[in-house]
Amino acid sequence: MIEITDPRIDAYLMNLTQQDDSLLLEMEKKAKAADFPIVERLVGRLLYLLTRLKQPQLVVEMGSGFGYSSYWFARALSLRGKIVLIDREAQHIAHARKVFSDADLFDRAEFRVGDALQIAREYQGIDLLFMDLDKHQYLDAITAVTPLLAKNALVIADNTLWHGNVAEVVQDRDTEAIDRFNRHMFTSKDFFTSIVPLRDGVLLAYKLTET
Amino acid sequence: MIEITDPRIDAYLMNLTQQDDSLLLEMEKKAKAADFPIVERLVGRLLYLLTRLKQPQLVVEMGSGFGYSSYWFARALSLRGKIVLIDREAQHIAHARKVFSDADLFDRAEFRVGDALQIAREYQGIDLLFMDLDKHQYLDAITAVTPLLAKNALVIADNTLWHGNVAEVVQDRDTEAIDRFNRHMFTSKDFFTSIVPLRDGVLLAYKLTET
Repeated sequence: MIEITDPRIDAYLMNLTQQDDSLLLEMEKKAKAADFPIVERLVGRLLYLLTRLKQPQLVVEMGSGFGYSSYWFARALSLRGKIVLIDREAQHIAHARKVFSDADLFDRAEFRVGDALQIAREYQGIDLLFMDLDKHQYLDAITAVTPLLAKNALVIADNTLWHGNVAEVVQDRDTEAIDRFNRHMFTSKDFFTSIVPLRDGVLLAYKLTET
Repeated sequence: MIEITDPRIDAYLMNLTQQDDSLLLEMEKKAKAADFPIVERLVGRLLYLLTRLKQPQLVVEMGSGFGYSSYWFARALSLRGKIVLIDREAQHIAHARKVFSDADLFDRAEFRVGDALQIAREYQGIDLLFMDLDKHQYLDAITAVTPLLAKNALVIADNTLWHGNVAEVVQDRDTEAIDRFNRHMFTSKDFFTSIVPLRDGVLLAYKLTET
């Protein structure tokens, strides 16, 4: 494990962000209490900014958890935009439904419980794909979904530095899977890719070719 | 000074990027030999990706140096896009002209020598503003240029973590100036802002309001 960003930098950045949205604060508290992984606020803000920039009509999340990242995406969508939340755990999706209902964002979301690789295949013309599913599935997931991406789509994948393990010599199954995924994204003719060392590493890929 | 990102992470990311563009490699070599500050390849790739995503018609650079960042922007522009390079040093702009000429990108660029704050004011409807001028000028620069930004403009500012100094107690004039700029960008109603701890800190701000 490597400390990707110096903790004093993280503290500085967190200090810059004022956040008074009570639903976000509640979700952050819940995640902390349950030790449940969420993208956290700094990545959430980046997702929001990129979504405003991209103005997607269809966002698909592979691995929504209880809806923290989904909430950032949904708030950034225009009225014509839609987000599909997918998670294997019914109780996570139930929680996300409640958050979206409380936030009056219900009409711009679809809530799906099940296998993200199967469910994502039902969609065409995905403008923004967010990947936060099991790490050993990343390469299979992008291979399955690449033909479903719209022209100029944006792919965002979380945890692509995997606690810094990708940069170390000794590696386990998940680390090797993430590394294979990263190499695929940087060498594929379909994408132009960058990894931002924010929190656990956020991969951004712009779809270059049409399918 | 704080090491913002662990050097093993930087090495991993650099290893992922294959770069065979001879003009870029030459510029990177020239910068290294002359110890001249450029945004470097990982930030260059992020600029390219964001420009593809944004598809700006008008990019204005305040502080172009000898054209390294400009080259990344210009290659990402569509045929309708234009970039304005501004630098105080005539010899830097002369070098950038040569690079753009060699790369056959000359027709999508304007080359200006002089004070960035004065020259930028000549433009309206800036879709993408890149700031890499003297650090003590950042706040004055964004104050002057905010009314000239187009709706939904993207602002990108380099060196906003300033060798990590912003997160330390003892601060000098440049550090304080950068910190004031960051606080302005995170609290202003005009922008939604994020800082990406890539290299020396890249601030991204999305223009929220119309002027």
